[in-house]
Amino acid sequence: MSNKQPSIPPSLTEQMRSAIETELKARVEASVGPGLDEFKFMMAYHLGWVGERAGPEAQGKRIRPLLVLLTAASAGAAWEAALPAAASVELVHNFSLIHDDIEDNSPLRRGRRTVWTLWGIPQAVNTGDGMFTLAYLAMAGLAETISPQVAFAANRVLFQTCLHLTQGQYLDMSYEVRDDLTLEAYWQMVGGKTAALLSACTQIGALTAQANPSVCEAYRQFGWSLGLAFQAQDDILGIWGDTAITGKSSEGDLISGKKTLPVLYGLSRQGAFARRWMEGPILIDEVNELARQLESEGALEFTQKQADDQIRLALGALDQADPQGEAGLALRNLALKLVQRRR
Amino acid sequence: MSNKQPSIPPSLTEQMRSAIETELKARVEASVGPGLDEFKFMMAYHLGWVGERAGPEAQGKRIRPLLVLLTAASAGAAWEAALPAAASVELVHNFSLIHDDIEDNSPLRRGRRTVWTLWGIPQAVNTGDGMFTLAYLAMAGLAETISPQVAFAANRVLFQTCLHLTQGQYLDMSYEVRDDLTLEAYWQMVGGKTAALLSACTQIGALTAQANPSVCEAYRQFGWSLGLAFQAQDDILGIWGDTAITGKSSEGDLISGKKTLPVLYGLSRQGAFARRWMEGPILIDEVNELARQLESEGALEFTQKQADDQIRLALGALDQADPQGEAGLALRNLALKLVQRRR
Repeated sequence: MSNKQPSIPPSLTEQMRSAIETELKARVEASVGPGLDEFKFMMAYHLGWVGERAGPEAQGKRIRPLLVLLTAASAGAAWEAALPAAASVELVHNFSLIHDDIEDNSPLRRGRRTVWTLWGIPQAVNTGDGMFTLAYLAMAGLAETISPQVAFAANRVLFQTCLHLTQGQYLDMSYEVRDDLTLEAYWQMVGGKTAALLSACTQIGALTAQANPSVCEAYRQFGWSLGLAFQAQDDILGIWGDTAITGKSSEGDLISGKKTLPVLYGLSRQGAFARRWMEGPILIDEVNELARQLESEGALEFTQKQADDQIRLALGALDQADPQGEAGLALRNLALKLVQRRR
Repeated sequence: MSNKQPSIPPSLTEQMRSAIETELKARVEASVGPGLDEFKFMMAYHLGWVGERAGPEAQGKRIRPLLVLLTAASAGAAWEAALPAAASVELVHNFSLIHDDIEDNSPLRRGRRTVWTLWGIPQAVNTGDGMFTLAYLAMAGLAETISPQVAFAANRVLFQTCLHLTQGQYLDMSYEVRDDLTLEAYWQMVGGKTAALLSACTQIGALTAQANPSVCEAYRQFGWSLGLAFQAQDDILGIWGDTAITGKSSEGDLISGKKTLPVLYGLSRQGAFARRWMEGPILIDEVNELARQLESEGALEFTQKQADDQIRLALGALDQADPQGEAGLALRNLALKLVQRRR
C-alpha cells in the first residue's frame, strides 16, 4: 500500500554516532542554570552544535567515544550502558582542545574560530575547566547504567590519563625550546598527548563490559599502540601529505618548525636537512625541496616503519582481546583506516 | 636527670597542619617523571614550598583541608584516614587560583609573582589542569584509607562542586560588564565561587567518617553558610578594612570597581553613592569619603547583618551535626574566627 522505498537499517557505527551526540548533549545540559546560557553556549559552540558553520564537520570524527562503544560491544556488553563513558572521553578530548588552542595561540579549529578567539582567554580557560568537570561527572554516570564499582574504576583510569595528558602537553611545550631531543623523549611526549587517551578509551570500554583483567589489558595495549601509530602517521602527513607538500597550508610541519618524528630522525642523520634546519625557520618555497631531501635521507621510510610496527602491535593486541561480532570487525576497520590515511 | 624543659604537645590543629603539608607533597610527587622536573616545580612553587619567598606565608592558611580533617574528627573518624580528601580540596582550591590569576590578570598572589607571570599563560593553564587532575587522584586515594564506596561518593561531591566553581567563576566574569545585578544573582555567584568548596570540605569530611545522611547534610549546610558569611565579611573588609579605607592598597574594592554586596546595596538605594558610581571609576582620593557615604546609606549595617545571619545559620547547622571532642571545639572556633576578622 505504501510507495516508500524499503529503508536500509543504519549500521552499528551510525547508530552509535547518533547515540553519542544525544548523550553528549544531555551531559552539557547539566551545566545550565540562571544566567548560565552563555556558559553552556560556549561549550555547545566548541562541540560543533551551534554558532558559525555548526554541523558534522565542526563536530569532528568522535573517534574516541566510538572506540569506547565498539570495545564495549566487542567485549560482550550492551554498548548503550557505556554511553556515559563515551561522552566522558569526548568531553576530555574537547576540554584539552579548548586549552591547547589557547596554549598554541591557534585562531582556528576545524575551520572555525576557536573559543578563546571569540570570547577571550579568561572565559576560554574557565569553559575548558567546566567541560573537564562535566567529563568526570559523565563517567560517574556509569554508576547508574552499570555499577558504582565500574564507575569508580573507570574514573580512576581517566584521572591517570588526564595526568598523562597534561604531562604530555607540558613536554610538547618545553620541547619547542630544546635542541637535544631524543626519540625516547618524542615517544614519551606522544604517549601522553595521543596514546594515553586512546588507550583509556579501549580500556574503559572493556571495563564497562566487566571483561577480565587480561582482556582489559589487551584492549588497553591495542589503544596505546594505535595512538602511537596514529601520531607517526600524522607526522608523515604533516610533511608529505597533500597540503603540507604544496607549502600552501599553514599546517605544514616543516614551516611551523614542529619537532616531529621524521624531523628528529633527519636531525640525527646530521646531513643536508639537519644543516638547513639549524639555520632557522623554513620558508614556503623551500618546503617541497626540503621534504624531498628529508625523504632521501630515509626519514619517510623510518617513520613509516615505526607506524607499521605500532599498528602490528595494535592488531596483535586486538587478536589477543578476541573482539566479537560486528563491533569487533568495525574496531579492526577503524584501526586500519586511521593509519592508512595516505594524504 | 635531663635539663630539657617539658615540651608542650602540639595542638590537634597543629598536628593536622603538619600532616596536610606532608600529604600534599606526596600527592604532587605523583607528577614526576623524566623531563618533568619543571612541571612539578611550577606546582610546588604555587603551593609555597619552593622559589621566591617560599614558606608558611606563601602557603596560605590551608583552611579547606583543615575543615575536612576537623569535620572528620568531629564526626568520629580517625582523621588521618581523611588526609587524601584534605589534600584533594586544597589542590582544587589552588588549581582554581592558578587559573583565576590568569583570568583576572593578577600579577601577585600571597605577595609573590603568579605562575602565569613567571612561566607564561600556556604553561600556567596546563599546570592548573595538572593540579586539577592530581586533586581527583588524591580523592580517589580514599579507596585505600577508607573504602572505594566512600572514595567514589567523595569524588562525586567534588565533581559537582567543581562544576559550581566554574559556573561561579563564569558569573563573576560576566557580572563585570552587567549593570542589572540583583542580590539574588550575587548570592548565586558567591555560592559557586566560595560556598560550594567550603561545603564540599565539611560534607566530604563527614562522608569519610561514614556519618549518617542527616549528619552529613548538617555539616554540608554548616560549610555552605560559613562560605556565604565569609564572603560577606570579605566584602566588608574590601571597603572598610584597614588597607581599603586608606586607599593605599590596590585591593580596595571601590577602586577596582568590584560589584560586592555593599556596592549592590548602595546601588539599589539610588542615592549619592549610586550617582557617583555610575559616573565612572573611583579615584584613590575619593575612596575614604565614598566609603563613609556608602556606610551612611546603610550598606555596612546591611552587609554585616547578612554575614551575621549566615553565621547564625552555620552555627545552628553545626549544633545539629553535634561535633565531638577537641575537633568539635576547634571547628566552632575556626568558624567564629573566620567571620570575626574586623580588619
